[in-house]
Amino acid sequence: MATLNGIDKGYEFLANQLPATPILSSWTIDGMVGCKISFKSEHLQKTGSFKTRGALHNMRILAEKESKGVITHSSGNHGQAVAWAAHQFSIPCTVVVPENTPAAKIDAIEGYRARVVRCGNGIVDREETCDRLAKELSLDIIQPFDTVETIEGQGSLGLELRSQLGEIESLFVSVGGGGLAAGLALALPDTTLYLVEPQGKELRMQLDGSHNDDQSALDTIADGIRVRIIGDENKRILANHPKVHIITVSEEEIREALILIWTRLKQHVEPTAAVAFAGLRQVQMAASSPLPFSSTTVILCGGNIDTSFIP
Amino acid sequence: MATLNGIDKGYEFLANQLPATPILSSWTIDGMVGCKISFKSEHLQKTGSFKTRGALHNMRILAEKESKGVITHSSGNHGQAVAWAAHQFSIPCTVVVPENTPAAKIDAIEGYRARVVRCGNGIVDREETCDRLAKELSLDIIQPFDTVETIEGQGSLGLELRSQLGEIESLFVSVGGGGLAAGLALALPDTTLYLVEPQGKELRMQLDGSHNDDQSALDTIADGIRVRIIGDENKRILANHPKVHIITVSEEEIREALILIWTRLKQHVEPTAAVAFAGLRQVQMAASSPLPFSSTTVILCGGNIDTSFIP
Repeated sequence: MATLNGIDKGYEFLANQLPATPILSSWTIDGMVGCKISFKSEHLQKTGSFKTRGALHNMRILAEKESKGVITHSSGNHGQAVAWAAHQFSIPCTVVVPENTPAAKIDAIEGYRARVVRCGNGIVDREETCDRLAKELSLDIIQPFDTVETIEGQGSLGLELRSQLGEIESLFVSVGGGGLAAGLALALPDTTLYLVEPQGKELRMQLDGSHNDDQSALDTIADGIRVRIIGDENKRILANHPKVHIITVSEEEIREALILIWTRLKQHVEPTAAVAFAGLRQVQMAASSPLPFSSTTVILCGGNIDTSFIP
Repeated sequence: MATLNGIDKGYEFLANQLPATPILSSWTIDGMVGCKISFKSEHLQKTGSFKTRGALHNMRILAEKESKGVITHSSGNHGQAVAWAAHQFSIPCTVVVPENTPAAKIDAIEGYRARVVRCGNGIVDREETCDRLAKELSLDIIQPFDTVETIEGQGSLGLELRSQLGEIESLFVSVGGGGLAAGLALALPDTTLYLVEPQGKELRMQLDGSHNDDQSALDTIADGIRVRIIGDENKRILANHPKVHIITVSEEEIREALILIWTRLKQHVEPTAAVAFAGLRQVQMAASSPLPFSSTTVILCGGNIDTSFIP
């Protein structure tokens, strides 16, 4: 079970390996929204997303166990993060990617010295290939979002935030598999958490315990959080946090938030990172009275943009 | 005549008004280019470009002279910078813009409380309208790039760089009217300056003294430096600098450099800012032997992107 104690220990290690990512702000955006916003810049994290935290934390534990090699499946940020983290510990790494993965992403993974194995495009294909190779080659699997090691690694972001900003009153975060949200929930038990999701995810129903077998990807420009179902451990952690709000944003809201971050904050984040800010904008627009906070924190979770999204 | 002494005095004032913009770097880009690169982030400057330096320096001098109001003509960064700077000193400000200026840019100028006056689209229209209103309304004109006050203001960037990085061996800068390049040339007399221009500008011929009456705008995506002719004072300063190289980059080279800055450095700079980096890439590609420097500095001059340039 992931715990605050585990996050504390992970942070002790990670804080020495990864420089704290900067807190950015914009007077113009603060003026538009009507509160002081701290943007936590995980797009400037090593490999371009917060995923590096969980990957490096996993790798430290596996290095102690003298792992002979690791494997994971991901076409995106998790794959790059695992490849980089494994390279830091000189652990051989294999990343299973769907056949339709853009060449640029494969280049990035191979640039971190990992071996890339292509498989079919479905999530089931990916998992099966990954499991089969892990067994055949005796490799350790690095899960993307629902293991103790990953959640505790991502949770270091919460402790880092507190070391930079003091107590965090409220925080907006984009939710995919839920590993980052769960890590933050454990690390910041007194913070009001706004979990922001694209349409169709139905996170409220998931947290309320409705069972959902729909493994299909969400249809959203936020390509980092197309996974529909959050992990069971993440669901448990989030359902137990006393101050959780869920906000569902439209594609249009994500796009508007993205353009504001690009043009006002001048940060070239990926669409997934704009989901969190879109949630804050929705709260602001809906508020007939002042916002329920005078300052807040928005996680910019990544900056690895699909090149098809560039003019 | 602009002097290093004038830049020193300006910097004393500006350093208290404008926080130093950060120096950014990327291991990935350093690896690609083969040297250590310091990216100076003037896109994170107040109003989103280095123009704020010259504008604020002008305004301080005019405030001492108890100016009753200022006027300038610009559809871009200079207009926003002057509007903001005037507002800091509570000096009334008018900005003359061509009729085809996008609404977003007018909103930005008006957001800084300046009055916007529309005129015809030619450069002559703009100058005539500006001069006529200045005379009628007794306003002081803030020139965009070829006055002592503007050059000395932009030069503060060179002193700021030295306070952050120590001696600057070499530096790449995009050149339009030449105010920033001239300011840097005065501030950094021992630095090798790479002046980078879009095709068609023929800066070499201009510095060699060829007369050029062609006032037409350059056809380039680098919309901040479409002005073809550099100012006379700037020409004189640059022609006297002992270590000046001129590099001409194609539109394709600008676009490639822009995408690298967006995707690797994660900074949403404007195309004009990518011109300087495109120059460094060209030097790198052309080098049959190691680069002529082990480290260098690239100015990211602005981040105000035309919204038509967003997908």
